[in-house]
Amino acid sequence: RLDSFVSVSELHEEAKRLLPKMAYDYYASGSNDQITLAENENAFSRIKLVPRSLVDVSKVNTKTRIFGRDISTPILIAPWAMQRMASQRGELDTVEASKEFNTIMTLSSLSTTSVEDLSSATNGNPGWFQLYVFKDRKVSEELVKRAESIGYSALVLTVDTPFLGKRTADFKNSFKLPNGLSLKIFEKLMLSNLDGGLNQYIATMIDPSLTWNDLKWLKSITKLPILVKGIMCPKDAELALQYGADGIIVSNHGGRQLDTCPSTIEVLPYISKVVRGRVPLILDGGIRRGTDVLKALAFGANAVCIGRPIIWGLSTGGKDGVLKVLNLLNSELQLAMALTGITNISDINNSIIWDQNKYIKL
Amino acid sequence: RLDSFVSVSELHEEAKRLLPKMAYDYYASGSNDQITLAENENAFSRIKLVPRSLVDVSKVNTKTRIFGRDISTPILIAPWAMQRMASQRGELDTVEASKEFNTIMTLSSLSTTSVEDLSSATNGNPGWFQLYVFKDRKVSEELVKRAESIGYSALVLTVDTPFLGKRTADFKNSFKLPNGLSLKIFEKLMLSNLDGGLNQYIATMIDPSLTWNDLKWLKSITKLPILVKGIMCPKDAELALQYGADGIIVSNHGGRQLDTCPSTIEVLPYISKVVRGRVPLILDGGIRRGTDVLKALAFGANAVCIGRPIIWGLSTGGKDGVLKVLNLLNSELQLAMALTGITNISDINNSIIWDQNKYIKL
Amino acid sequence: RLDSFVSVSELHEEAKRLLPKMAYDYYASGSNDQITLAENENAFSRIKLVPRSLVDVSKVNTKTRIFGRDISTPILIAPWAMQRMASQRGELDTVEASKEFNTIMTLSSLSTTSVEDLSSATNGNPGWFQLYVFKDRKVSEELVKRAESIGYSALVLTVDTPFLGKRTADFKNSFKLPNGLSLKIFEKLMLSNLDGGLNQYIATMIDPSLTWNDLKWLKSITKLPILVKGIMCPKDAELALQYGADGIIVSNHGGRQLDTCPSTIEVLPYISKVVRGRVPLILDGGIRRGTDVLKALAFGANAVCIGRPIIWGLSTGGKDGVLKVLNLLNSELQLAMALTGITNISDINNSIIWDQNKYIKL
Amino acid sequence: RLDSFVSVSELHEEAKRLLPKMAYDYYASGSNDQITLAENENAFSRIKLVPRSLVDVSKVNTKTRIFGRDISTPILIAPWAMQRMASQRGELDTVEASKEFNTIMTLSSLSTTSVEDLSSATNGNPGWFQLYVFKDRKVSEELVKRAESIGYSALVLTVDTPFLGKRTADFKNSFKLPNGLSLKIFEKLMLSNLDGGLNQYIATMIDPSLTWNDLKWLKSITKLPILVKGIMCPKDAELALQYGADGIIVSNHGGRQLDTCPSTIEVLPYISKVVRGRVPLILDGGIRRGTDVLKALAFGANAVCIGRPIIWGLSTGGKDGVLKVLNLLNSELQLAMALTGITNISDINNSIIWDQNKYIKL
Ligand SMILES: Cc1cc2nc3c(=O)[nH]c(=O)nc-3n(C[C@H](O)[C@H](O)[C@H](O)COP(=O)(O)O)c2cc1C
Ligand SMILES: Cc1cc2nc3c(=O)[nH]c(=O)nc-3n(C[C@H](O)[C@H](O)[C@H](O)COP(=O)(O)O)c2cc1C
Ligand SMILES: Cc1cc2nc3c(=O)[nH]c(=O)nc-3n(C[C@H](O)[C@H](O)[C@H](O)COP(=O)(O)O)c2cc1C
Ligand SMILES: Cc1cc2nc3c(=O)[nH]c(=O)nc-3n(C[C@H](O)[C@H](O)[C@H](O)COP(=O)(O)O)c2cc1C
Repeated sequence: RLDSFVSVSELHEEAKRLLPKMAYDYYASGSNDQITLAENENAFSRIKLVPRSLVDVSKVNTKTRIFGRDISTPILIAPWAMQRMASQRGELDTVEASKEFNTIMTLSSLSTTSVEDLSSATNGNPGWFQLYVFKDRKVSEELVKRAESIGYSALVLTVDTPFLGKRTADFKNSFKLPNGLSLKIFEKLMLSNLDGGLNQYIATMIDPSLTWNDLKWLKSITKLPILVKGIMCPKDAELALQYGADGIIVSNHGGRQLDTCPSTIEVLPYISKVVRGRVPLILDGGIRRGTDVLKALAFGANAVCIGRPIIWGLSTGGKDGVLKVLNLLNSELQLAMALTGITNISDINNSIIWDQNKYIKL
Repeated sequence: RLDSFVSVSELHEEAKRLLPKMAYDYYASGSNDQITLAENENAFSRIKLVPRSLVDVSKVNTKTRIFGRDISTPILIAPWAMQRMASQRGELDTVEASKEFNTIMTLSSLSTTSVEDLSSATNGNPGWFQLYVFKDRKVSEELVKRAESIGYSALVLTVDTPFLGKRTADFKNSFKLPNGLSLKIFEKLMLSNLDGGLNQYIATMIDPSLTWNDLKWLKSITKLPILVKGIMCPKDAELALQYGADGIIVSNHGGRQLDTCPSTIEVLPYISKVVRGRVPLILDGGIRRGTDVLKALAFGANAVCIGRPIIWGLSTGGKDGVLKVLNLLNSELQLAMALTGITNISDINNSIIWDQNKYIKL
Repeated sequence: RLDSFVSVSELHEEAKRLLPKMAYDYYASGSNDQITLAENENAFSRIKLVPRSLVDVSKVNTKTRIFGRDISTPILIAPWAMQRMASQRGELDTVEASKEFNTIMTLSSLSTTSVEDLSSATNGNPGWFQLYVFKDRKVSEELVKRAESIGYSALVLTVDTPFLGKRTADFKNSFKLPNGLSLKIFEKLMLSNLDGGLNQYIATMIDPSLTWNDLKWLKSITKLPILVKGIMCPKDAELALQYGADGIIVSNHGGRQLDTCPSTIEVLPYISKVVRGRVPLILDGGIRRGTDVLKALAFGANAVCIGRPIIWGLSTGGKDGVLKVLNLLNSELQLAMALTGITNISDINNSIIWDQNKYIKL
Repeated sequence: RLDSFVSVSELHEEAKRLLPKMAYDYYASGSNDQITLAENENAFSRIKLVPRSLVDVSKVNTKTRIFGRDISTPILIAPWAMQRMASQRGELDTVEASKEFNTIMTLSSLSTTSVEDLSSATNGNPGWFQLYVFKDRKVSEELVKRAESIGYSALVLTVDTPFLGKRTADFKNSFKLPNGLSLKIFEKLMLSNLDGGLNQYIATMIDPSLTWNDLKWLKSITKLPILVKGIMCPKDAELALQYGADGIIVSNHGGRQLDTCPSTIEVLPYISKVVRGRVPLILDGGIRRGTDVLKALAFGANAVCIGRPIIWGLSTGGKDGVLKVLNLLNSELQLAMALTGITNISDINNSIIWDQNKYIKL
């Protein structure tokens, strides 16, 4: 049945049909008027690629490397919460697909599978771990050390969520986890029940007083490389490097935090200019086509993360659905590379972006 | 029931459902083809905010000061006419909410509650008073002196209404006040009945021959600070200061006067540049989200006024509805401040507006 | 009944309801995909006016002068064909309204009322006459001399119609005049019947070999001032003056000739710059509001012509309908002048157009 | 019945009604989200032509010359595959119409009529031949020599198809040729049946390792002029000339290859600047009106090819339908020339394009 889908948008439609409204709304929504949510996608559509011809493209290769690890594609899996609302095995399905495709998944701090279970399921090689720093730093410290000890290979510090963005549908639905599911990390932390609503509760746990100095502290308690996720301002990219970030993820949280902030692809070229290849640069937000991946790489990203496309794949077909999405997008990337005359990820640069100022007009 | 609303636009829908068509149309309409009405809102949506990260935002404070008075928020209540069509107690509901929230309401010259009643209801501290100068200057003079003597703390001189804008729906509805309501200020002035239609009548009272010299005259008869409301041209901002204005309100009357004039947020940065902080600068028009407030402040406003959001709140829930709107918008403002890394109103400046010319591109 | 209409667009809707489809389509259509037709209106909506305040606007006057004649408004009536499809008395209704309002109508070469009858109905003061130069120059010469002798006070030479534009609906409807109506000028010229379709026939009469030298010839056979109608290129404006034009009408024939040519208001400022007030400059196309008139005058026009608004007025209410339209638009113009701080037509200039490059930004 | 159609878009509608869904979808589709497909048309609509007046346009001539051959119009027929799905005689209908109109058709490599039959039907003067270079170069060589020997007068080397673009509808429809039809060139090459789907099969035949050096090889095996089709980058235009191309066709394959690449008319002026008249320059993509043809020529093209308009014509009326389309578009071109004051193809240049930077504003 999965064979019949030829694009991410069709999987989106199918997932919308299959999921309970509360779960679908939670997954799909952006904040406020969802202007940034839409803009994340639309901004990609406005960027134009230049076809090139008569280059030998019989072998197009999407392999690349990040933190010394070989992966089959620059398309990584973004951390997203509560995956067991989408399939029964949730995060386990996703991580197994990521291993099979030889790419990297980042486990969310708000996962419905424990860090331990994910590690076991992958023989101690589960990928990256996304961290929210809690008000109780001791708790965070233990969490980091535990993750490091059981095989997570990098930390993704999400910095765009001192408070949760305002998502209308979740209020309307009084969003909470379905019976039987729980946030595994929080389960350990306390026994308090969550009457005020789940989002409310999470909000009270995350520490809004975090500053760049805490990045230093984090580096002092772990040997893992730390990627700072949620950078949208060139000045913050500079600060991140200054304070020792090992990688930067340009992200606006999929349009779920500050509405009317720019799309990620719009700010990327300005952040690339600051980063100048000193650390890996990743973009997420709005990627729905292989051409979108190519555009992000052309503007300086080393890799991209995808959130919702994976959600729709997992909801539609579990592990196979996730693989389907990875295959779809990676084939589209390969085709887009061929049609722009590029055979290797490392050869991608902004010369493939149409920019009329580069040429002279009649 | 008010708890179920999470945005101004939902309250708008509810008010539309509740109000008689004639009242709703009067409140909602703009002039002619309502291009400026729409543009007031759309222009905000096009402006993009830059998220900032890892700033300690555990304490975000919206307190500010205007004319030496501390208020809890830079969100003030615009003068708007005939509030008793929206709730039974009309202006009294609104003013009580303003006091409870510790912000400022401006009473309209076209109010359905008298200046005296509003003053009594607030123990002689009703806020500001909006003035139309009438053809009979003696009448205006008495009105000003009366307002000053019973506690109004500033005058808002509306200067964009030498004639009323053309609002189609009001013509179609032969708009008039429902039985039992009257314009309290006019009631005193004369006994003539209003057969030619209410708008028609008002139009004949307001003096279209007013000039900047009349601002001098007005200053000579009162000690109250005078804000000039309805400035849209940088040259008029300069003139206002030259003739002694104590404050400027950038406003196009909520799109109800000259259609196809610019949105207020579009002209604000040019007027800020002229005013250079010499007097308080306020913007109204199209504010529907906390992010809109933040954008206005970033472009140089010291505060904003809101008209229709208050109308929808009052129509839906009386005093509590007004409080609901103030709470909604102020929380949104607070969240937007947190996500742009700002903790105090006085720290807001245009560095939080995305402007690609400030950065270098790959 | 006419009292209930408050805008040109409402009269448009009513006319659409009242007219037979064939007539409505003929009147409403533009050429090809009607891109210019739409753009004529849309371009006005995008231009923004700057409100000005505290100017004495108690007396706003729309009087102006053209070719030494005082008129009550800068709004003239464009020549448009076959008016008896819209009302029984057709051109007679229109001309009587024009006299009553003290403005000028131009009689079309394709009128369903003869030049003589129009002259009689106005005591020998019918206004201007629009000329198509026919392949047989003798016929044209006689026509010009006749018109001059019976009181027409200017000639409007239409130069944008060497061939008729392609209007889909007319083909589909096999457009022809209803029984009983005829093109009065052609009636005299020949007896041939019009089997090939009316547009087809007209097309074969008009001379596509006309050049600027023919303007000289035309001037040699008449003392009347000659306005060249259909200028859209600044270079043609220069040529027109060079060859002796006494006035220029910027027009794209209401979007009925070359589709995807610019709107008239877009080219006007460039043509004004060439004309520099040496002769009267008139614009037509897309004017539906008083603000549109004001914008045209601000960009250098001395007057405007309106076509379709008059058509809708005549179709809805005959002479009174035409008066209604003139009243509506002139009142809107007056109000727009007041709100931009202008009291006389001669004081209008481009300072009332919002242009952010004129000011400095924060 | 064909008489009732007055525009290409009406023929499009009719063809959609008449064709089986699978064939219609194959013909109409673009790749991915069809952004380039739409943009090809929309970009033309945004370009504005300047009307000119009082030029003698009684004789407007669309004759032109290409590779020393006189043709009646700059409108040529693009190579498009599998024409027998549209009419029974397919390519034979199209070629006969092209001869009758005295223009040039290019036979597609994916034709359902053999190169030989087309040659016979035209007495050895069938027009141009479009070439895909196959993995087996010997096969390609034989094909080229055969085509040359039986009268094809130029080769069109399509270089934008190392792999086929992703067209959703064809996947959904499991697109294949209807019974009884076959790709005549492939028929000869092998007997394998096409179970993997037709597009799939074609893809495996075309050689994605082709480079500019193969253009040299191609020139070495034929005396025919070679046009390189599918150039979208000014740098590739330069390379094409360097490697000996005799003509360049700016094309994005009608939006069927790299989605989100620019429209062809957008890149044309930059490619014209590179080519500087050294070889014939042709554009295809999105031409639906005579004004589009005129715009392409104004930006430097010597001729245009049309694909889908011919498809709709052939589907609606066979050979007569193709003639209808050629007549429609050429008449529209003629009218557009007249209204821009141009009488000969060689007089067209970019002065007829509205560009406000060429003029001074009030
Ligand atoms: C339902 C959902 C849950 C998410 N949960 C988290 C999370 O727990 N931690 C985090 O850092 N980002 C989270 N994100 C943000 C994603 O990591 C990523 O930034 C975003 O989804 C990318 O945009 P896209 O969905 O358009 O691909 C979440 C996103 C979604 C849609
Ligand atoms: C129904 C209504 C009545 C108004 N009455 C007055 C008034 O009496 N005096 C005045 O100065 N402004 C009046 N205004 C304008 C408001 O003060 C304010 O400029 C405008 O509402 C701000 O735009 P907003 O509604 O988009 O927030 C009125 C506005 C509305 C919508
Ligand atoms: C139905 C119709 C008939 C017209 N007939 C003529 C005509 O006979 N002669 C002429 O010079 N212009 C003619 N015009 C053009 C008008 O004079 C004028 O340029 C145009 O209507 C202005 O645009 P508007 O309709 O948007 O106001 C005609 C326009 C219309 C709509
Ligand atoms: C159905 C279809 C089949 C096509 N087949 C071929 C082909 O076999 N070879 C080729 O070079 N181009 C092919 N093309 C591309 C056309 O030659 C041409 O570039 C395109 O149709 C021009 O765009 P238009 O359809 O908007 O006029 C095809 C296009 C279509 C629509």
